[in-house]
Amino acid sequence: MINYRKEIWLEVAGRRGLVNITPQVMDCVRESGIKEGLCLVNAMNITSSVFINDDESGLHQDMDDWLEGLAPHEPVSGYRHNRTGEDNADAHLKRSVMGRETVVAITNGKMDFGTWEQIFYFEFDGNRRKHVLVKIIGD
Amino acid sequence: MINYRKEIWLEVAGRRGLVNITPQVMDCVRESGIKEGLCLVNAMNITSSVFINDDESGLHQDMDDWLEGLAPHEPVSGYRHNRTGEDNADAHLKRSVMGRETVVAITNGKMDFGTWEQIFYFEFDGNRRKHVLVKIIGD
Amino acid sequence: MINYRKEIWLEVAGRRGLVNITPQVMDCVRESGIKEGLCLVNAMNITSSVFINDDESGLHQDMDDWLEGLAPHEPVSGYRHNRTGEDNADAHLKRSVMGRETVVAITNGKMDFGTWEQIFYFEFDGNRRKHVLVKIIGD
Repeated sequence: MINYRKEIWLEVAGRRGLVNITPQVMDCVRESGIKEGLCLVNAMNITSSVFINDDESGLHQDMDDWLEGLAPHEPVSGYRHNRTGEDNADAHLKRSVMGRETVVAITNGKMDFGTWEQIFYFEFDGNRRKHVLVKIIGD
Repeated sequence: MINYRKEIWLEVAGRRGLVNITPQVMDCVRESGIKEGLCLVNAMNITSSVFINDDESGLHQDMDDWLEGLAPHEPVSGYRHNRTGEDNADAHLKRSVMGRETVVAITNGKMDFGTWEQIFYFEFDGNRRKHVLVKIIGD
Repeated sequence: MINYRKEIWLEVAGRRGLVNITPQVMDCVRESGIKEGLCLVNAMNITSSVFINDDESGLHQDMDDWLEGLAPHEPVSGYRHNRTGEDNADAHLKRSVMGRETVVAITNGKMDFGTWEQIFYFEFDGNRRKHVLVKIIGD
C-alpha cells in the first residue's frame, strides 16, 4: 500500500469565498503515483468546508446567500460562541451544512469523477491562512 | 490490496424521489471478494445525494418536505444559477444538505451496519439517467 | 494492509447532547498499530451524528438551538414518520444536517488533525444505548 500526504495552504480575502482546488488535488494524485485507491480531502480548520459541486459562479453566490439565510452572521451577539471574543459562530454552522471533507475514488491514476464534479474550498471566516489536507492511500 | 469499481445507473421519474440502493451495493461488496476494507458510494451527478438513514416512507416524505422548505424550487427566477437556462439551483442546495457520499466499513465481507442503516439515493432533478459510483478497497 | 474495528457504546441522558469522543478514537488508533491509513468513524444509529468541530460549550449550545430551529421537535404530529408511533422524526433530520460519519487521515500513527479539530458524537434521540463504529485500514 502506498500512502501520500500534502497540505494545501490558502488565504481568502474577505469573510467568505469559494476556491476551486481541483487542480491542486489532481497534482497530488499524480505526484502520489497511486493508480487505485481513495483520496481524502478535508479542511483542517473548523470554519471552512471542502465539498464537491458545480463550477458555476451564479450557483456559488446562491450558495453563499442561502447559507447566510440559514445561519446569519449578524447579530454577532446572537450566538453564545461569540461571547468568547470570536465573531465566527455562524462560520461553524455554515461549515456544518457544507461538510468538512470529501472522499474521492482514484481509478487508473485519476480522480474518478462524473462530468461536472469539481472540488471546492468554502471559506466562512477568511482574511487568514488556512489549510486543507490531502491524504491518499492505495496501490 | 484489492480494488473494485462499479457504476449503478438509475432514472427517477419526476423531479424528486428516493431509491434504496442497499441491495445493489451489497452485490458489489459480494462481487469484489473484499473481506475487510472501506466502501465509498457517491453520486456522480451534482444534483443528487447518497446518504444513510431509515427505510420508512413517511420519513422520506418528511425529508422531501423539509428540504423543499429549506431550499424551495420556486420561484425559479430567485436563483442566479437559473439564469444560465437551468431550473435546478434548488437541487444543488438540497444535495448540499444531504451530502454527496457515504463511506461504509466492510467487515467479514459485509457492510458493517447498525440495525436500521440503509443506503439511499436522493434525486433532486430527475427524469434523466444518473449514476452512482461504488469503489471498494481492502483485502 | 492492517484493519481494525471497534464499537464505542454510549448513552446520553436527555433527548439531545454532545459527547467528545476524540480520546476513545485516539485509543483505537494506538491499539490498531496502524501508522498510515484512513480511519472511518460513523454513528451506527440513524438519529445521531459523528462530526468534527470545535470543543467549545457555547458553540455546542448554538448548534443545538440552530438545529432545533431548522427541524423542530414539536409539534410531534407535524411529521409523517411519527405516525408510526415514533416521536423522533426531527432527530433524523437533524442528523442529516450534521452527517453520519467522518473520515480522518492517520499519519505517523496519529489522527492528522488541524489545531482545533475534535470528533463529536451528537445525540438527537437519547436516553438509550447507542453505538459508534471505528474502522481503520492502512499499514
